[in-house]
Amino acid sequence: MSADMPRPHAERVAAARLRLAQDFQMWLSTGGHAGPHLIPVAFVADGDALVTATGEGSRTVRNLRETGRARLAVGTTADVVMVDAALDDLVPVPRVATDVADRFAAVSHDPRERPGNVYIRLRPQRIQVWNGFHEFPGRTVMLKGDWLTEPAD
Amino acid sequence: MSADMPRPHAERVAAARLRLAQDFQMWLSTGGHAGPHLIPVAFVADGDALVTATGEGSRTVRNLRETGRARLAVGTTADVVMVDAALDDLVPVPRVATDVADRFAAVSHDPRERPGNVYIRLRPQRIQVWNGFHEFPGRTVMLKGDWLTEPAD
Repeated sequence: MSADMPRPHAERVAAARLRLAQDFQMWLSTGGHAGPHLIPVAFVADGDALVTATGEGSRTVRNLRETGRARLAVGTTADVVMVDAALDDLVPVPRVATDVADRFAAVSHDPRERPGNVYIRLRPQRIQVWNGFHEFPGRTVMLKGDWLTEPAD
Repeated sequence: MSADMPRPHAERVAAARLRLAQDFQMWLSTGGHAGPHLIPVAFVADGDALVTATGEGSRTVRNLRETGRARLAVGTTADVVMVDAALDDLVPVPRVATDVADRFAAVSHDPRERPGNVYIRLRPQRIQVWNGFHEFPGRTVMLKGDWLTEPAD
């Protein structure tokens, strides 16, 4: 387990920003009336959004069309950045921005090279950061899409 | 990325069994009409079941009551054991088997020591194992709760 001292708020904000900017794999959870789905998938940050891609007919895309919501984790089970996100857009391959698609292709397969894929833009609404039970209080660093300047929980 | 040679079926079965027996952290995804939920949480194997615990009033438990289904991942985004599971039982603390609770307490906090927790027994129905796109074919090692002796996909 981690040390017992929780990190100060500003340090958690910085940890979340760093992971979202530099990591490139996430656990993407979606769910609808048919139950939960979960996939490991590559992503890149694009401004305030996170961009990933998967099959147009996949359960992930069907769930996103149904609920417009995702919950995704970056990091490890012991040091996690947890993001509740809203579906911003499903972007067909011909519409994707080249720089985003190029950066995505550098950390995954290239969805432009296989038929049937769609890009997914997710907009973080709430972000929580913790590395153990001792960090449960004060773990929220973003609410309603805004980075918090002080702890809210 | 991984080497290009997919592991043979028997090796993937062994990899899944080993992770479920020896790992003790998972990503637990549940979802209902309110959308997806995802938590990192400790677990232990108990016969064919996986046992974890969380708050009785948590979204995870509410979703499980609603759908009876979970999807959980053990391992990393690059080397994953993905389990679709059915809710077997929600076990109140006074009913939990001592050996299971003791083993769980050795890898997490002890739910018996805090009020408001419930143990969750999940029964794997389908298990898939892959460590890269090259392992997508043949990734199913369990179907309908039975370990497969040969690839099914």
